[in-house]
Amino acid sequence: MSTRLNASNINPHVREAKYAVRGELAVKSEEFRAKLARGDNDLPFSEVISANIGNPQQLDQKPLTFFRQVLSLLENPLLLEKESALIEHFDYKPDVIERAKWLLSKVGSVGAYSASNGVPAIRQSIADFLERRDGFPAKESDIYLSGGASSGVNTLLHVICADEKTGILVPIPQYPLYTASLSLLNATCVPYYLDESKNWGTDLAAIKKACADAKAQGVDVRAIVIINPGNPTGASLSETDIRDIIEFAREERLVLMADEVYQTNVFVGEFVSFKKVLSTLQKENPGKFDHVELASLHSVSKGMVGECGHRGGYFELVNFDPAVQAEIYKFVSITLCAPVIGQCLVELMVNPPKEGEPSYELYKKEYDGIFNGLKERAYALWRAFEKMEGVECGEPQGSMYLFPTIKLPAKTAEAAKAEGRTPDEFYAMKLLEATGVCVVPGSGFGQKEGTLHFRTTFLAPGTEWVGSIVKFHEDFMNKYR
Amino acid sequence: MSTRLNASNINPHVREAKYAVRGELAVKSEEFRAKLARGDNDLPFSEVISANIGNPQQLDQKPLTFFRQVLSLLENPLLLEKESALIEHFDYKPDVIERAKWLLSKVGSVGAYSASNGVPAIRQSIADFLERRDGFPAKESDIYLSGGASSGVNTLLHVICADEKTGILVPIPQYPLYTASLSLLNATCVPYYLDESKNWGTDLAAIKKACADAKAQGVDVRAIVIINPGNPTGASLSETDIRDIIEFAREERLVLMADEVYQTNVFVGEFVSFKKVLSTLQKENPGKFDHVELASLHSVSKGMVGECGHRGGYFELVNFDPAVQAEIYKFVSITLCAPVIGQCLVELMVNPPKEGEPSYELYKKEYDGIFNGLKERAYALWRAFEKMEGVECGEPQGSMYLFPTIKLPAKTAEAAKAEGRTPDEFYAMKLLEATGVCVVPGSGFGQKEGTLHFRTTFLAPGTEWVGSIVKFHEDFMNKYR
Repeated sequence: MSTRLNASNINPHVREAKYAVRGELAVKSEEFRAKLARGDNDLPFSEVISANIGNPQQLDQKPLTFFRQVLSLLENPLLLEKESALIEHFDYKPDVIERAKWLLSKVGSVGAYSASNGVPAIRQSIADFLERRDGFPAKESDIYLSGGASSGVNTLLHVICADEKTGILVPIPQYPLYTASLSLLNATCVPYYLDESKNWGTDLAAIKKACADAKAQGVDVRAIVIINPGNPTGASLSETDIRDIIEFAREERLVLMADEVYQTNVFVGEFVSFKKVLSTLQKENPGKFDHVELASLHSVSKGMVGECGHRGGYFELVNFDPAVQAEIYKFVSITLCAPVIGQCLVELMVNPPKEGEPSYELYKKEYDGIFNGLKERAYALWRAFEKMEGVECGEPQGSMYLFPTIKLPAKTAEAAKAEGRTPDEFYAMKLLEATGVCVVPGSGFGQKEGTLHFRTTFLAPGTEWVGSIVKFHEDFMNKYR
Repeated sequence: MSTRLNASNINPHVREAKYAVRGELAVKSEEFRAKLARGDNDLPFSEVISANIGNPQQLDQKPLTFFRQVLSLLENPLLLEKESALIEHFDYKPDVIERAKWLLSKVGSVGAYSASNGVPAIRQSIADFLERRDGFPAKESDIYLSGGASSGVNTLLHVICADEKTGILVPIPQYPLYTASLSLLNATCVPYYLDESKNWGTDLAAIKKACADAKAQGVDVRAIVIINPGNPTGASLSETDIRDIIEFAREERLVLMADEVYQTNVFVGEFVSFKKVLSTLQKENPGKFDHVELASLHSVSKGMVGECGHRGGYFELVNFDPAVQAEIYKFVSITLCAPVIGQCLVELMVNPPKEGEPSYELYKKEYDGIFNGLKERAYALWRAFEKMEGVECGEPQGSMYLFPTIKLPAKTAEAAKAEGRTPDEFYAMKLLEATGVCVVPGSGFGQKEGTLHFRTTFLAPGTEWVGSIVKFHEDFMNKYR
């Protein structure tokens, strides 16, 4: 007798889904970490650096004090019975206490389910933030709290994808959540390539061609995903690029899905939201853009907040049919609600201490410190890449990643093939084995045929690990030359 | 121009999914609540009682102090810098501080992603709990932390359901998560009826017949869902019933999915886990049951913990093929990880203060207080039902619900039809409009044709709301007689 389920009879769409960010390399890196923790010293490195995933607080980034002080009070409201002791012994400021009381008055207990789309007062707080950010109205009823942005993407793709003919335009390289989710839904991924020569900006001609080709093959192209600032590329789109994409979406009747989780991780240029540009176009051209649907996503996971373990996020729907919104509401209700403490963290993110408030000074200092630290690390890593043979990388622009091109020597392909890997997978595995640094091969995100890349975060502190990459690379190049 | 998405072109499986627990009645009850909050006084009641959903902390249940003290320290570890002030001013006991430090040493920051299947040390703690509970070994690598049990059910059904021919045996009445998830996956729900005359126990003959009928129609029946203790029924299965089900699963090669989230909400009889019975059968019959796959689910949402807003849960896999486990791991990795603070709460649930430890006394007092309070409320409600004309309800057994049969007068059907509702929906809507008490009609869970029921939690404190149900029922019966 054998088990009923085996690898060949389970859901084939699960089997087909690929998710390299937490794939073989990540599993191996955890094995190494466990080995080191056991005191096993036969590895050629003393620490595993998980540069494969944007996990800021695993890599030295400290949580913002104001946020965590408020959360501690939400978890144990009994602490509020002795405010003076909180102030005296733990330096909790009055605005921390006030915010916790306000949230508790709106949420009740963080241990209770909220409304399926999130706590109404938190949705209103997000709407207020969006109005301040963009200068255009936002409605709380158009906002849905989610368990991180990933869960929002899952909801939106579930509703949009009707069958295997549904096509979704997805940038390449991309964060593999999109391709994996489309595999699970058995819908069609319509890839469009970003332009590496323009620092990974969008190439409208490439998007148009990808869309036209798919339509010619009978694909019902319904939506376009834009990751801005880019993951894994870090690129920020200009307002002109965004206008062009929205105009294209209007012409082709595509739903816009704007993944904007890196909106505060911007070193070059500035973040412009799709909501702002769409609202501007609606204002400039009465009636013309009122049926262009936009879903934009954000989360507490990235930026200076970096609280991915709390699984907090939201999406805003613009110009959606109320009947479709009702179906989205039903869908999110099946999994009940997003974690309530994560919802509260979203509220803190969109409504942080303001200038003049007691917690502002420390908040600002911590926030700027993280921002500058990330920028410094990005540049240190980039300068190292600049010196490495066969490695090319644009100047850091934002997000948490660099995505260099690597040109590997001829013998690499053969050696990789012998191990059943692509050359970039082979390179990344050798890097991990030699240095303990875990990166993700470019094939995990998609790359033009004949090109090779890897993605690394620049979150890890110190410079030793950068040095070990440089050294490994030199040895690798010499070995396979 | 119209929007691209409308109710008729979105994913038809989303459209078809039904989820009454948070459906029209729940939405209407929230409107009433908002109206009352605005000071609008033209409703015939002054409070909305959400008896439609098992949401303990929305209805007076207090969180357990030990748990929330630990969580406050995990959210703000800076508090640990002044242990003496915690002890002196806030009565934090040494075991609270110790546990928080231990968890932080294993988790790092609760703001960081954990491993996709959960923090290893927490998985080990769960395995230890299962060993103590059942007297059989459990392995941490077989345990997967999830965002509440719902997310675990979603994962398991995603992997098990290969296509529309896949059938899953689901008890009727059932918690509608199962039917809704099967709709989304476009798989086949194979309903089996529970036996109301035996206080909603399982009826093996009914299960066998449902399975055989489905197979005769070409359905590939792969798994059987058991909710024990039952939702909405509260019934606890005996060891004999469980043995019979496992033996049937072995014969028919069905995966067992045991939803055991109410395992501590038991007033009558005792909870026996599927894991324990399966392990016993494996021991008694060497080799015979080693290929019977079991997935059992638990969560922090129910019981005396009642922390559903934290979205913490886990499932254990027994006898699964390692290749299938690898696919499950990949699936959960796509949504990254369960909320880490929720994972910590799972750890606290499975490893609460022990006798002799400083926090034990208060923990025990709070825990027993909640248990006894729930039991008292259950009986108060049941006694009210006993007096109501045409209402029949078994003695409370457990979970958080009563599920009475209601026999409504002849004119009800007509009046309901005129509003486009089933008679039980009509009754529940009138109840809500008259009293502010929100229950779920039996049709939301499934019921035998020609029978009518509703599900109500017995979580709400006080007796006034019970009185208002009695009064409403009398008026309703008189009006439609």
